[in-house]
Amino acid sequence: MYEVKMYEDILNLFKETGNKISKSAGEIYGTDEASEIIGNGAGGDKTKKIDKIAEDIVISEISKNFDDFCLISEEIGIKFFGKASDMACNKFFFVDPIDGSNNATRGIPLFSTSLAFSTSQYINDIKVGYVKNIFGEEYCAVKGKGSYKTDVHKIQKKILMNSKDDIEFLGVEFAPCGKNLDEISKIMQLAKHYRTVGSIALGLCYVAGGALDAYIDLRPPRILDLTAAKLIIEEAGGICLGKENLKVDTKTKVNLIAGNKKAVEKINKILEI
Amino acid sequence: MYEVKMYEDILNLFKETGNKISKSAGEIYGTDEASEIIGNGAGGDKTKKIDKIAEDIVISEISKNFDDFCLISEEIGIKFFGKASDMACNKFFFVDPIDGSNNATRGIPLFSTSLAFSTSQYINDIKVGYVKNIFGEEYCAVKGKGSYKTDVHKIQKKILMNSKDDIEFLGVEFAPCGKNLDEISKIMQLAKHYRTVGSIALGLCYVAGGALDAYIDLRPPRILDLTAAKLIIEEAGGICLGKENLKVDTKTKVNLIAGNKKAVEKINKILEI
Repeated sequence: MYEVKMYEDILNLFKETGNKISKSAGEIYGTDEASEIIGNGAGGDKTKKIDKIAEDIVISEISKNFDDFCLISEEIGIKFFGKASDMACNKFFFVDPIDGSNNATRGIPLFSTSLAFSTSQYINDIKVGYVKNIFGEEYCAVKGKGSYKTDVHKIQKKILMNSKDDIEFLGVEFAPCGKNLDEISKIMQLAKHYRTVGSIALGLCYVAGGALDAYIDLRPPRILDLTAAKLIIEEAGGICLGKENLKVDTKTKVNLIAGNKKAVEKINKILEI
Repeated sequence: MYEVKMYEDILNLFKETGNKISKSAGEIYGTDEASEIIGNGAGGDKTKKIDKIAEDIVISEISKNFDDFCLISEEIGIKFFGKASDMACNKFFFVDPIDGSNNATRGIPLFSTSLAFSTSQYINDIKVGYVKNIFGEEYCAVKGKGSYKTDVHKIQKKILMNSKDDIEFLGVEFAPCGKNLDEISKIMQLAKHYRTVGSIALGLCYVAGGALDAYIDLRPPRILDLTAAKLIIEEAGGICLGKENLKVDTKTKVNLIAGNKKAVEKINKILEI
């Protein structure tokens, strides 16, 4: 029971952190300052000021509450704090400070912060997942305790995925120049409506919350983008299929199918990721 | 000059109406009540309660300010008020109360209200256009007076489209079962990133505001969905290409390409809409 209490404390810490990021990132959203390039992230992308501001808040908030931990984030990479080291660490934080930076800097108010806590560097050991739409709703899960959505009216509800056969609404991301369209077009034939959100963490949470029936991303996306949402989908009763039990770092990328069991099986029969 | 003053008054009326819709539609967003089917709209779609609430606000606000006018909206169809008639009317309001109802009812907080004023039933006579993201920013234009965006921080700025050659970010909507993918895939090859927003009015405003470099919808969408955004793009210096000078009603649909001159020419060379 000690762990569950700790996990709930971590979730509360994530919520506070998310609110602080919403305030600060929300303030510079849409300004030239937000998109100012201030360096190269460990994951290979350019670091924009809005990313850096959000990451600094995460580091500061976690440091206030923990001494020895590892934080893996797109900008700073893999960093051990206090006495934690490669050989001795049982607290890992997987962070995507701003998922959907392009939306944020170009002026589409749909981007999120994604925070996960794991007892190892492996994705299957994640115990707490949290995703917040910077201007809106919030999704979260504690391992074994279910998934919850807090909507724009601040009302929190447990979310449970349905088991329907149809994929009516499909979330889908495309590779540049539509290079993977041949593969994706086979899946698109299954659906009626599509959404390309531009924030993977948020797109996956829309699956957990029932706004989308399934989601595919074969660009492939970085594993860091989906750590929190994976637990949120699983705790809502769904499946987030990638390679099994990957070690989380800033560079690994993974093809992704998410949905309820039937949807994922139907899609994977075609794609065989 | 009398007209411009009147157009600005109408824009203010639209802004007040948009704020009222944001409040009421925002309140029931995500509830079962929002998606309750309460009838069949004139445009052929089922009328959801959230659509009806928004439409009622528009009718009430316009009726308070005008006696004789025509209102064309997806739910009620083409309706003349006061002494206005098919033979005598110079005030037309084109209304899409909730553009992106699917987002609204399934739980994606990205949907808008679209209001346009025209001196005839023809789209080229539109004088005022207004689109509001229910939970966020607002776009508007008065004919000959430029386009403006009011961001989430309530700061209003004039928007002007760039004239760059590249289509880096493409907004695109797909037909059910991806039936028009063959055609669309040729355009997708031109771009690097894609967004499928699920609200045409908002997607088009993202073009006007520079978040997207171009936008295509060949499902085709209903003309009512794009009336306001068409003026907003044009007043921002862009092009919103559909069939020329269409008469606006609830049923006409039109293939659509939007962007700056170069982008639209590049796309239309391939599509020839």
